[in-house]
Amino acid sequence: MKIFIAGIDGYLGWALAQYMTAQGHDVAGADKLMRREWVAEVGSTSGIPIASHADRLQAFEEQFGKKLDFRVGDLTDFEFVTGFFEDFKPDAIVHLAQMPSAPYSMMDVNHAVWTHTNNITNNLNILYAMKEVVPDAHLVKLGTMGEYGQPNVDIPEGFFEVEYKGRKDKLWFPRSAGSWYHQTKVHDSHNTWFATKIWDMRATDIMQGVVFGTQFPGLGDDPRLSTRLDFDEAFGTAINRFCAQAVAGHPLTLYGAGTMKRAFLPLRDSMRCLTLACETPAQPGEFRVFNQFAESYSIRDLAYMVKEVGAELGLDVEIKHYDNPRVEKEQHYYNPERKGLDDLGYEPTTDVKSEMKLMMEDLLKHKDVIESKKNILVPYTRWDGNHHRSEELEQAETVS
Amino acid sequence: MKIFIAGIDGYLGWALAQYMTAQGHDVAGADKLMRREWVAEVGSTSGIPIASHADRLQAFEEQFGKKLDFRVGDLTDFEFVTGFFEDFKPDAIVHLAQMPSAPYSMMDVNHAVWTHTNNITNNLNILYAMKEVVPDAHLVKLGTMGEYGQPNVDIPEGFFEVEYKGRKDKLWFPRSAGSWYHQTKVHDSHNTWFATKIWDMRATDIMQGVVFGTQFPGLGDDPRLSTRLDFDEAFGTAINRFCAQAVAGHPLTLYGAGTMKRAFLPLRDSMRCLTLACETPAQPGEFRVFNQFAESYSIRDLAYMVKEVGAELGLDVEIKHYDNPRVEKEQHYYNPERKGLDDLGYEPTTDVKSEMKLMMEDLLKHKDVIESKKNILVPYTRWDGNHHRSEELEQAETVS
Repeated sequence: MKIFIAGIDGYLGWALAQYMTAQGHDVAGADKLMRREWVAEVGSTSGIPIASHADRLQAFEEQFGKKLDFRVGDLTDFEFVTGFFEDFKPDAIVHLAQMPSAPYSMMDVNHAVWTHTNNITNNLNILYAMKEVVPDAHLVKLGTMGEYGQPNVDIPEGFFEVEYKGRKDKLWFPRSAGSWYHQTKVHDSHNTWFATKIWDMRATDIMQGVVFGTQFPGLGDDPRLSTRLDFDEAFGTAINRFCAQAVAGHPLTLYGAGTMKRAFLPLRDSMRCLTLACETPAQPGEFRVFNQFAESYSIRDLAYMVKEVGAELGLDVEIKHYDNPRVEKEQHYYNPERKGLDDLGYEPTTDVKSEMKLMMEDLLKHKDVIESKKNILVPYTRWDGNHHRSEELEQAETVS
Repeated sequence: MKIFIAGIDGYLGWALAQYMTAQGHDVAGADKLMRREWVAEVGSTSGIPIASHADRLQAFEEQFGKKLDFRVGDLTDFEFVTGFFEDFKPDAIVHLAQMPSAPYSMMDVNHAVWTHTNNITNNLNILYAMKEVVPDAHLVKLGTMGEYGQPNVDIPEGFFEVEYKGRKDKLWFPRSAGSWYHQTKVHDSHNTWFATKIWDMRATDIMQGVVFGTQFPGLGDDPRLSTRLDFDEAFGTAINRFCAQAVAGHPLTLYGAGTMKRAFLPLRDSMRCLTLACETPAQPGEFRVFNQFAESYSIRDLAYMVKEVGAELGLDVEIKHYDNPRVEKEQHYYNPERKGLDDLGYEPTTDVKSEMKLMMEDLLKHKDVIESKKNILVPYTRWDGNHHRSEELEQAETVS
């Protein structure tokens, strides 16, 4: 299957290029390498050192015995997108090419506007380019579980049957996102749904949980093949951040009470699910929504797991609470449904601690990198528009 | 009350400046005069000739005995917005400054992207500028009833109580818009709701029906005070388009069966409702949604009313069906609720025919303008991405 990866240089994209190639698919992709710039802008770097574009291409060819068509280019440039699609004629497009950080989008008006413009424009370009060049191809668009927010009802896969004032309909499940970045994902979900309706396109919208980990089947030993692993407040996701903090001897930074629940999945599961979605495409005109996660946990429970795994590795991990820089519910109901991917054969990895251990072992090799960034590990960007490092809270932490 | 009108040169904006001033409010506003350019771009012009910026200012001063601070500027320029807010310090901001045409947004990828970028950026700028300069001010943001689409249940005012799998919550009523333009309105609704949650802002989101008419209380006799009236397929709304077609002796252009239902209100009611919303602001942190319309009709029924009113004015009005250029349901349930504005004292104008007659009398004075554009009255922009004038359908039309 010919699979185009938009955002092939990113945490998921670079891993997916290798995973799918190892599975026998023919992969190509584009990236403007902006993730590298954004992480530098917030004063950080990847916790696992990553190779340059040229070195990645070289290592890929050595590993898989074939060249990878990975072009550096801007997906907000419509001609670049159509030109690449004309050359490659993909069967599926996995769209990961977005600015993916909530805090980055919340920094100020310029970052809010830029995040919207970038994310919405490249999604529209991909939709129009598919329509013009490969109208039968299948779009697998990365969304996030964060689009749904924290409703007081179960979270279905995209749509739900409701009764209102005596009448029934199957309606779009309302999205209620918690940052400008998450808002752009909601906007793209709406836009993609609309495109399937008017152009009979095939699309799968992946409502993905928070991904963690460094390992996946198909990853070679060559360090130039490693995918990035961010640990800063903006681009590092919860478990990745905690594991890096544990390795560097920094207290784990729980926001507020840390009782917020989120859905998570290891990197290997994300790779598996995205591949399953490509291999069984949506029908023409179908907008299929998959909730893509393994399990739900409170952030606090995850911190305790990291502490436990750290102890196995001889690390003395401290957990601290910080003034929550975000405006979010800390106590809430959370019960997302998952059926679509299970029907395609997904079996969730539930051994979170083993995955944490593999990651910490990888990160320990680059402990100095994270230690050199210790000064940026406490959150700085606040949802109220201010910028200052969060204060440590007095809250005593007891074993849950 | 100090009221800032974003989009003060438009159909609603220029009327609102006069209406609110006549009501004793202190008005200022900004506009980039782009509506004039967009309508020229689609090969049309206002059916009621409109004065230049300078002439409008002069006529306003003569009519109301005071200068109007109406600046030509771009609301996608954040410094322009904050600078104006700092000078004027508004109590309320009525945000009408958007590209408002479904067909224009559907023309091609460039128009789709530009509509998104323009509409979303100026809304974000207004939100951030309010937060920075006038955090206690109230945003009255113009949305559209089109955001809701045509669900098979009643349409509440923004939110609804639902039960799903045995649990209850008050959720955002899902939006399901039918064009890229309408999608941008949905995105702005989500973004504005989010801003009220994180910044304790006051906002009212106006889900407005389709506006029609030329007359409103406070409009002076000076022709330089007239507001624009578009009749082309892109910027002309249904009743306005039909009245102009009747005046020019062109068949009324029903799309498909014309059985689609929409909510409508006369221009005078729009002015009244927007003023009511400003005069009783939302509370801090409140995102208030008003469904703003007088009554719902099928497009076909409206065409017959125009035919009837035309006959009273000696016009022989023909009604024809054309291949529908849009992808939309022609048969659907439609029952929007309206309570918020009624609670503030709104009494809908239900005498649609009198309003149509006033408009046709106004348009008859400029019959030659519309006649000169007869070649663009049949729809041209198609939702499938093609561009050609719709074919006339064989469908025989009988009195409903």
